[in-house]
Amino acid sequence: MNAVSDLQRLIGADAVLAPADGLERYERGYRYGTGRALAVARPATTADVRAVVRYCYTHDVRIVPQGANTGLVAAGTPDPSGDQLILSLERLRAIEAVNAGDRTARVQAGTRLSALNQHLAANQLFFPIDLGADPSIGGMIASNTGGSRLLRYGDVQRNLLGLEVVLADADATVLSDMKALRKDNSGIDLKQLSVGSGGTFGIITAAQLEVHRLPAQTATALLVPACQAAIPQLLSRLEAEAGEFLAAFEGMSANAVEAAFLHNPRIRNPFGQGAVPAYTVLVELASVLGPDRIDLSEFLGERLGAYLEAEDPLITDGLLGRSEDLWAIRHSISDGVKSLGRIIAFDISVQRTQLPALRAELLRLVSETWPFLRVCDFGHCGDGGDHFNIVWPADAGTAYDSGAVEALRERVYDTVVKQFHGSFSAEHGVGPYNAGFYERYTSTEERAFAGKLKRLCDPKGILGNIQFG
Amino acid sequence: MNAVSDLQRLIGADAVLAPADGLERYERGYRYGTGRALAVARPATTADVRAVVRYCYTHDVRIVPQGANTGLVAAGTPDPSGDQLILSLERLRAIEAVNAGDRTARVQAGTRLSALNQHLAANQLFFPIDLGADPSIGGMIASNTGGSRLLRYGDVQRNLLGLEVVLADADATVLSDMKALRKDNSGIDLKQLSVGSGGTFGIITAAQLEVHRLPAQTATALLVPACQAAIPQLLSRLEAEAGEFLAAFEGMSANAVEAAFLHNPRIRNPFGQGAVPAYTVLVELASVLGPDRIDLSEFLGERLGAYLEAEDPLITDGLLGRSEDLWAIRHSISDGVKSLGRIIAFDISVQRTQLPALRAELLRLVSETWPFLRVCDFGHCGDGGDHFNIVWPADAGTAYDSGAVEALRERVYDTVVKQFHGSFSAEHGVGPYNAGFYERYTSTEERAFAGKLKRLCDPKGILGNIQFG
Repeated sequence: MNAVSDLQRLIGADAVLAPADGLERYERGYRYGTGRALAVARPATTADVRAVVRYCYTHDVRIVPQGANTGLVAAGTPDPSGDQLILSLERLRAIEAVNAGDRTARVQAGTRLSALNQHLAANQLFFPIDLGADPSIGGMIASNTGGSRLLRYGDVQRNLLGLEVVLADADATVLSDMKALRKDNSGIDLKQLSVGSGGTFGIITAAQLEVHRLPAQTATALLVPACQAAIPQLLSRLEAEAGEFLAAFEGMSANAVEAAFLHNPRIRNPFGQGAVPAYTVLVELASVLGPDRIDLSEFLGERLGAYLEAEDPLITDGLLGRSEDLWAIRHSISDGVKSLGRIIAFDISVQRTQLPALRAELLRLVSETWPFLRVCDFGHCGDGGDHFNIVWPADAGTAYDSGAVEALRERVYDTVVKQFHGSFSAEHGVGPYNAGFYERYTSTEERAFAGKLKRLCDPKGILGNIQFG
Repeated sequence: MNAVSDLQRLIGADAVLAPADGLERYERGYRYGTGRALAVARPATTADVRAVVRYCYTHDVRIVPQGANTGLVAAGTPDPSGDQLILSLERLRAIEAVNAGDRTARVQAGTRLSALNQHLAANQLFFPIDLGADPSIGGMIASNTGGSRLLRYGDVQRNLLGLEVVLADADATVLSDMKALRKDNSGIDLKQLSVGSGGTFGIITAAQLEVHRLPAQTATALLVPACQAAIPQLLSRLEAEAGEFLAAFEGMSANAVEAAFLHNPRIRNPFGQGAVPAYTVLVELASVLGPDRIDLSEFLGERLGAYLEAEDPLITDGLLGRSEDLWAIRHSISDGVKSLGRIIAFDISVQRTQLPALRAELLRLVSETWPFLRVCDFGHCGDGGDHFNIVWPADAGTAYDSGAVEALRERVYDTVVKQFHGSFSAEHGVGPYNAGFYERYTSTEERAFAGKLKRLCDPKGILGNIQFG
C-alpha cells in the first residue's frame, strides 16, 4: 500500500499532499500539538470524504479530521508517529444557501466563520458565536464553541438546525438531517452525537445553522466592580434591568489587561495613565432597534450612574466607550498573554455565581505554591467560564519545569472539578492536551458508555486522536 | 413471579398499584392510547427506580415510563396486552433547588410545569416553554416540547443544563450530569440521547434547567394578514423592528377560532359580531423592561398602524387587546376543536417560509378528496409548526371510517415530508400513534443507527412501547 498514490487515484492528484509537499501548517496546532502526518487529504465533496474513509477503514489508516486548525486541545493535529492521515475540510467551503426569511444558512463544514459572516451581512444577518479565532464551521460544531455572546445567543448547539456526518464504518455511512426545521421531534436527534465530540464520532461535512439579525446599535462599557462578590449581583441587576439587550458580560484581570496594553500599543488605557483596576467587566448591550426607539448608550450610562451612586455601590468606576476600542482590549489579551512567556492555559467553568470564589481559591493556590507565576485570567462571567491562563515568565529566574506544570494543572483542575463541581474544558473540547483529565474526572459509567458509542460510529477506532471510553 | 408483590417488597406496598386498584387514569392517554397495565410502580427515589428496572430486566418485564400522562402520541400509555409495567414518575416531584443568581432550577422528573412556575415566580423567574397542557418536566424532556414561545426562548433542549437518567441495562446504570454548567465540553453530551426520544433510551429522573426572568410587560395583538404570503413577510418585519421583544407569532384559521368561540362562550369576538377573518396571527411582545422605559403596547400599536397604512399593506386589520383575552382564544382552540367531532390530529412542521404553501396544498388535498371534513388548523408560524387538526364532524352524514382516515394521514404526511421536506412530528415526539410513519420516512441508515443506540441503552428492549431502529 502507498496511501498517497492510492488516495490520489481515488480523489485526484491535487487533493492529496505528501510529506514532501511540506505539511507543517497542517501538522502544527495553534497552541498545542505538533506531529507528523502520513499525508493530507483535501476532499472537495462528501463523496470524496466517503472514498477516503472507506480506504482508511479497509487499510487501517488512522484519520484526524481538521477544519481551520484553530483548536486549542490538539484534537485536530496528528501525533508524532507519521501514521495518521489528516483529512482537511478546507476545500468543502461553499455557502450553499442563505434563506433570509427563515434566518438559516446551509454551509459546508470547511466554511470559515468570517466568510460566513461576510456573506450574511448582505442580509443584515450573522452567526452570533463570537470568538477570537476564525475557525471553520465544522470545527465549531465539533468543539461546540461558546464565545463571548453565549449569554444572548447560546452556543453552537443552540444554533444548529441540521448536520451531515460521515461515520468511520465500513460503508462510510452518511447520517444526514439537513431539513433546517426549527421543530422536529420525529426520531432520535443523531446530530447531537457530533456536537462537541472533537470529530471522533464522525466527519462533519455540512450543516444547517440558525442565523440572527445584526444589531442596529450596541453600547459598550467598562465597569469596575466594588469587589468580586459584586460581579454576580451586577449581572443579575443587568439581566433584570437591561434584559433582552444584554449581549456580553466579560471579565478581565489587571494582569490580562496590562498584557493587552503591552502587546497592542495602539490601545489607549481608558482608565487614564497607569491605573488598571484589579478587575474589569466589559458589558455590551445590543439591539436590532435603532437609537431613535431606545438609545442604548444613554440607557447604559444611566445604569452606570445608578450603580455608582447607590448607598452600597456595586461598582467603583464605570465608563462608556466606543465598542471597537473596548473590545480591542478584550481581543488583544490572548496574544498579549502569549508574548509574556510560556502559557499554561485553562479553559474552565463553574456555575456563574461561583466564579468569584473559584478565582480567589485558584489565585491563592498559585501564589502560595508557585509565586513566580503570573496569572492573567479573563473570561465569561455571564456564563461561568474563565480562561485561567498562567504565564511562566521569561524572566522567572526558574527554568520552565514541565513536572511542576503538570502538578499545577492537576491542582487547578482538581479544585475546579472536585471542589467547585465545574468543568475542566468549558468550550475548547477534549483532545490529547487534556485527555488525561477526561479520564481523571469522568465517571466509569459515562466513559464506558461513551466508549460503546464510539465503537458504533467508528468500529475500528481509526478516527480522531482521542478515543473516549 | 408475581410482579406486584415482588415490586411491593422492593419499593414499598403503597408504591405499587395492581389492576384491582383501578389503573384507568394511567392506562388512558390524553388523546390516544388506551391499554391495560400489568401494574403501576410509583417509585419515590432514583434508587427505587433502579430497583424496579433491575427487577424488570431480570424478569423480562416491559416498562412504560409515564410522567403526567399528557403526551399526544401514546408513548406513555401501555399496549392492550396487560404485560407492561407503567413506571410513573409522579412521586418524584421535588423542586430540589432554585438558584436565582444562576437562573437555574434542579427538579425531579415528575415535577409539573405549573408547580415549577408557581415556585419560580417568587424569584421573578419562569421556565418559558408555553403549552396548553400541564406536563411533567421529565415528559417535556422526553418529547422535547417547543410550544408557543420557541421563537424567543427555544425548546426544552435549549434550556436543559443537566440530566439524570437510568438506563434499562442489567445494572440499571445511572448517567448523571447535574452540574448545571452553561459551558461544558469536557466529554460526550450524553444527556442529548434522552431529549426527544420518548423515554425509550432511559428513564429520566432529574434535570437541571435554565430558567428566565419573567417579563415586566407584554403587548398582544391580533393581525389579519392581507394574504397567506404576507405572513412570513410580517414575521421578518417584526423580527427586524421589534427584535428581541418578539415572544410569539401564532396562526389561527377561521375554523379554529370559531371552534374556540363555540366552546368557550365567555370569549368575546374581538372582531365584532359574526366576522371571523380567514386567518389571524396572534403577536406577543414581551420585555423585562417596564413601560416607563419603552411602552410595548404603544410600540406595537404604532407598528400595526404602519403595516395597515402602507401602500401595499401587509395586514387588513390589526387590534391590540388584553393579553389574557387574546391568549384565551388561542388556548381554547384545542378543546374547542375536540368538541366538534372526532379529531384527526397532525403536528407537522416545515421551514417557516414554506408554511403558507404547505397549508394551501393540504387544504386543497382535503377539500378535494374528503369535502365533508373540517380543517381547524392553528400553529406556530414563527417556527414553521402547524397543528393541522381535522374534524370528522358528528353531523358529517358519513360514519367515521378508519380506512379513510389512514389514507388521509398518509396523504397529508407524504405531502409534508416528501413534497415540503418537513416533519411528521414537530413537537409531540414518536409513539405508537405515529411509529409507522417513523418507519416510512426515516432513512435506513438512520433507523439502523438508532436501533444500535437503543440496544446500548436497553439491551433487552424492555423500555418504552416503541423500539426505534
